[in-house]
This record gives sequence, structure tokens and C-alpha cells, in this order.
Amino acid sequence: MNKNTNYSVPGFLGSAVSAGLKKNGEKDLALIFSQRPAIATGVFTTNTVKAAPVILTQKNIKRGFLRGIIINTGYANACTGEQGLKDALLTANLSAAQLEIKAEEMAVASTGVIGSYLPVDLIKSALPSLIKNLSPNGFYSVADAIRTTDSFPKISYSQGHTNGKKYSILGLAKGAGMIMPNMATMLSFVLTDINIDIESLLPIFRSAAENTFNRITVDGDTSTNDMVLIMANGFAGNKIPEGKELKEFESNLRETMGNLSYMIAKDGEGATKAIIIELNGATSQKEATIAARTVANSPLVKTAVFGQDPNWGRIMAALGRSGITMKESMVQIWIEGVKIVEGGLMVGKDEEIEAAERMKKKDITITINLNQGSCKERITTCDLTYDYIKINAGYRS
Amino acid sequence: MNKNTNYSVPGFLGSAVSAGLKKNGEKDLALIFSQRPAIATGVFTTNTVKAAPVILTQKNIKRGFLRGIIINTGYANACTGEQGLKDALLTANLSAAQLEIKAEEMAVASTGVIGSYLPVDLIKSALPSLIKNLSPNGFYSVADAIRTTDSFPKISYSQGHTNGKKYSILGLAKGAGMIMPNMATMLSFVLTDINIDIESLLPIFRSAAENTFNRITVDGDTSTNDMVLIMANGFAGNKIPEGKELKEFESNLRETMGNLSYMIAKDGEGATKAIIIELNGATSQKEATIAARTVANSPLVKTAVFGQDPNWGRIMAALGRSGITMKESMVQIWIEGVKIVEGGLMVGKDEEIEAAERMKKKDITITINLNQGSCKERITTCDLTYDYIKINAGYRS
Repeated sequence: MNKNTNYSVPGFLGSAVSAGLKKNGEKDLALIFSQRPAIATGVFTTNTVKAAPVILTQKNIKRGFLRGIIINTGYANACTGEQGLKDALLTANLSAAQLEIKAEEMAVASTGVIGSYLPVDLIKSALPSLIKNLSPNGFYSVADAIRTTDSFPKISYSQGHTNGKKYSILGLAKGAGMIMPNMATMLSFVLTDINIDIESLLPIFRSAAENTFNRITVDGDTSTNDMVLIMANGFAGNKIPEGKELKEFESNLRETMGNLSYMIAKDGEGATKAIIIELNGATSQKEATIAARTVANSPLVKTAVFGQDPNWGRIMAALGRSGITMKESMVQIWIEGVKIVEGGLMVGKDEEIEAAERMKKKDITITINLNQGSCKERITTCDLTYDYIKINAGYRS
Repeated sequence: MNKNTNYSVPGFLGSAVSAGLKKNGEKDLALIFSQRPAIATGVFTTNTVKAAPVILTQKNIKRGFLRGIIINTGYANACTGEQGLKDALLTANLSAAQLEIKAEEMAVASTGVIGSYLPVDLIKSALPSLIKNLSPNGFYSVADAIRTTDSFPKISYSQGHTNGKKYSILGLAKGAGMIMPNMATMLSFVLTDINIDIESLLPIFRSAAENTFNRITVDGDTSTNDMVLIMANGFAGNKIPEGKELKEFESNLRETMGNLSYMIAKDGEGATKAIIIELNGATSQKEATIAARTVANSPLVKTAVFGQDPNWGRIMAALGRSGITMKESMVQIWIEGVKIVEGGLMVGKDEEIEAAERMKKKDITITINLNQGSCKERITTCDLTYDYIKINAGYRS
């Protein structure tokens, strides 16, 4: 995440400007453009209340191709009805016209305050300079512009080889609050020049999203605007990967998306620590997920971690109310590798003191074994702090 | 809730002392005693992880009678295994012996930190003075002693007449965090001298609990120790109420329990405001409850209320992720009687300014109409503030 690093992917251009959407004059409008049509797919919010850009992008991406993505901050363009849909469409139309592509080849993403109409005039005025600035090195600027309450831009970059050709994967993301693992949980854009077909890309992308972005939580709230899009433009010129080659690409893709989702949890609004909940020994996958999420979303567990208190009673209580199959006397809990609960009971004061000491770290892993079955889950979250309140009590004012 | 008010109920005695369980030397051990066996029933936590006193009291109350309740703070006696059960039983045995009643006639309730063993020796030493202090006017002292993070003692007192005889209802409660409407959600003890049979009392008490204590939420966490007990000792000497007379008693009982549950929500850890979510127009009772609870537990909604921001977009987003049947374009929302959303869209800036002004009040009602059906729900919660973090990040230290 260095401003001066070259995060380029052959065939992709990026750009960002200040269009006057953010009150503080920061960059707030970004554009991603592929020099030729790219294979594309996405995952979207499961919230019944979907923002206009989500509805439009879901429609456009059905064709399996995209050329560009325009992203604005400041306005979510959610809960804006017919006018909102018109505004999202107009944004796509205006940018497609100037890029000399079809409007259906554009994706639109928005993030910001819900319920206010998108000032399309401001976007229209900013478009010429946005397009003029398009550059292979414009992606740090894109990651920077799409931030809202994020404290740092989120970028993950990697390279690999497939069938003898080098390819790159660039992942960009934003999202720090209203994050809940229930389908796409913020904005993220993954760009790669690998040559791949949609039939191969779709399942590995969905599975990667399920195991990365859908395994983080900040506050249990799911946004109306979440989307994760991937574009693959084939500039690498490789033979389409299969078997082991495809597996390798999948592994790189998942790592990129895993890095981004970890950054989002770590940058949870007001967070001082990332918390990794490792849940083992559940009787079913569903119960493993419910149990891990209940612990991850418990305000009492999250404040205890903020206070560096190995308060395992709150973990037990969260497990108990999750409604899963468990036997209190079978539960084991470790904090940062120190076993503090055995057979549902405290191990000892010394272990708690050692665990408290280790909780001074920035990443805290809480490992739970229910000893009821063989299913497991892993969810990443963050602590709950004074600054979460500060950010969210004052966000609109 | 005045120290000097006489909250007495004929035939009941109360007492509280400091047994050294709370570090600060405050009263921490309380006793309620009925001068003759009282009809009794209760509702208990739905958490799979149940504290030892919950297990013991659930067993003892099956007989339908109680003489006494002993309550300690400082130690939850939860996640304490076999030793915890022995300690709860010993507490019942020791107090029963000194009160000259049977151990099965005692209920035991505990609240405090999970996972530490109950110091029964301290309780044993304090018992003689606890019993010596028993008095018809001891109930303010009981309400005071059972507090943990509560900022005030919670008492509701009323009187009524049935079949020409006067009766009293006294309700005591504690609970400020780890509150979630899912069966009994904190400690509460309701004492009445009405003469009633268990067959009549059971359904009206359960229904009252369902509509009061189970309709509040502070942080979505359900404790391991929650219980609500009622004792009716018959000292009023009335003919057992039926029909209209029974209805009147039910109404008084529900008001007492409603007052207590409102006090608990209002005294949510760190809260500055009570929030009442009124949800109308759902297609089923289940969906009405899910929708109202999702809004009530949303950290983003709760922080917005703390910030006195009529941020209806967060309410829409919470409704949307709750998974209920809704049509965005049908939703109406009012804050303190000011309509701010019509047809899923913002009504206007003036209305938001007016709503923000009214949000300076201490009790904020958010009314939602989904316009999808005729089912409704009402949940009381509180705002999420800096002090919630402060209290919970430092509770054990």
C-alpha cells in the first residue's frame, strides 16, 4: 500500500478526481477501465433494500463482460426510488459515451449516506478530467478515492504464472463499518489480465468471496450497497488454465481477496485489534458458522478484547445463546494459544494472566473447540471501541 | 424508587447486607422471605449455558411453592461445573436451615462475573445478620443490593382490589447489559399477597413476561443467569379471582413488569436514551418480531440515536437485512411522530430537522409501517454510547 508502488495490470487503467461529492474536498470519484472487454462477474449484497447502482450493475454484469466501473463516494444512492435508478443509469450512460463504449459495459458502484439523491451534475462535470487522468498507474488513487470511514486504502497485489505466461491480480477494497458476512460486504474490485473463461472463473470467484469477504464482520450490519466485482481481460495471453494451473490461480485469487477482507476487518470502524474466531468441533457446517458469527458479533466479547481482558465467560455465554448443539462441560477455549477453558471450566489464574499479556498484540486469535463434531469455521472481526461510537454517532453531521 | 417509601407487601420480608462479594464494600447479598409458603413460578434464560443457581431454582420451583429467595451479586456462579452446583445447593441449604424451612423451598439467584467459584464462606458468615435484618420495609435495600452495573435500583409498586380485598404487587429488578429479548433477560422478583392458584397465575405471568421482559434489548447478548420469579402468598385473604377480577390483576401485574422492563432498557449500560421500536404492517407475528429486533439491535441505529441523528437510511438497511417480507417502496417511518420516510423515500429536509430536534428527548419512539400485513411488534432498547464501551472494556478489572 505504498503510493509510489506500481500496482499495474496490463490492459487496465485507473483514475480518480475530486468531484465535490465529499464535503472535505478529497477525491471521491474513481474510474476503472479495461482497454478491451473483460470477462466479469460479481457478488452483491443480500439486503432486500438494494441501492440503485447494485440493481443496475447486477443487470449489466449478466452479460458476462464489462469494460469499466465508475465508483463514487459521499452518496450511497440507496433508498432513492425511481430517481435513484435514473441517476445510476445516467452515470453509466454519461461515462460510457465519453469512453466510447456501450452503457451496458459499465458497472456503477456507490457508497456513502443513504437516502440523498446522487448529484449527477457534479459527476458529469468531473467526467472529462476523470477520463483524461486514466493511467496504468492510477490504482492507488482509485483505492484512496473509494474510502469513506476507512483509515487506509486497501490494496492487494500479486503475480503468478500460468502455462508459461505471467499474470497479475490487483484487488482494491473499501469498507470499515456496516460489515457483516452475508454475501458481498463492502466494495471491492479485483482486476487481472489472466486469460480465462467465465465458466472457470465463476465458481472459483464465488467460492473465494464466500471464504473471504463473507467471513468477516464489523458490526453485524449489512449494507445496501455491497458488491465485489472481478474483471479478467486476457492481456496475459495465456492458454486458458485448467487442472493444476487453474488451482494455482484460484489460490492466488483467494489470497488477494483474503488479504483485502482481513484489511477491512482490521480497519473496522474505531478498531484497535483484529479478532480471529476459530471455531472447531461443531456438529454441522451451519452450526459452526452460527456459533463463530455469534461470538464474533457479541458486543461483550468485542469490548472485552478492547479491554485486553480474557473474559472467557462472555465467550461461553455467546456460544450458549447461539442455539447450537453444545455441551458446556466439553468446551475448550484458547486465547492466542493459551488454553484458558478446559471442560467448560477456567484452567487457572496464571493462564488468564498470560492470556491478558498476549492480548496486548494487534491480532488476537480466539480458538474454540466444542468437541461435538468435525465441522469448523473461521471469522475475522475487530474490537468495539470508543471510536466506533464517535464515528457512527456523528457520521452525517 | 424512594429510599423512604414503604414498598411493603403483607407477609413478605426483605433484607440485604454486605458480605464482601463486591469489591467496593457495597451491599451484595439479599434475602426475600415469605411468612408462609407462597405460590411461585418463574421464567428462565434460554441460553444453553445455564448458571448453577438457574438449574437449582428451576428444579425447586417445579413444586409450585417457595418460601425464600437468596440473591448474590459479584459472582454469576456460571461455567463453574459440579462445584458450582454444590455451591448453589449449599447456599440454599445454609439459608433454609437458619430460616427453619426446607432447602427445596429456597430459590437461589446470582449475578456477576462468569467462571469464578462462589465464595460460599462469605455468604455463610453473612447469613445471621442477613436474617436478623429481615423486615417488611427491607425491599429498597434488596433492590439496591442486587445491582451490578445498574445506575439505579429498579422497583415498581402498585395496589389493587379483588373481590373486595386490597392486594399489593411489588416488583424488583436488576439488569443493564447482556440483555436480549429471549426468555427471561435479567433478575426480577415479583411479590404479591393476592390469593391465587397456580393454574390461574402461570399463564398470566408467562404472558406478561413475554410481553415485557422479552420485549427489551440492550446489546443482543443473553445472559446465563436470567430469571424472573413471582411469589404470591395469599395474605390478602381474597376469594380466588376469576373472569374480570383476574383480568384486572393480570393488567396490574403486566404494568408492574412493564415498568421494570422499561427501567432496564432505559438503564442499558451507558445509555442516555430509551428507544421504542414500534413495527407495524408485517405479514406475520414472527416477521414483525424479527424486523423490530433487528432494528433494535443495530449498532448503527443505536449510535445514530445517541448522536440525535434521524438517520432513517440505517433503519431501512436494518429492515432490509432482517430477511423479512418487505417492499422498499411501501415503507413509512416516523421518529417521535414526525414522518420522515414515505414510500421508502425521504419526506424532506424540514422533517429531518424537526425529527432531530425532537430526538433531544430522553425517550425516542421510532415507528415503522411496512404496509405488508397486519402484524405488529414493540421492542424497547437504548442508545449505544461511549459509556457502554467504558463499562464493558473494564468490567472485570
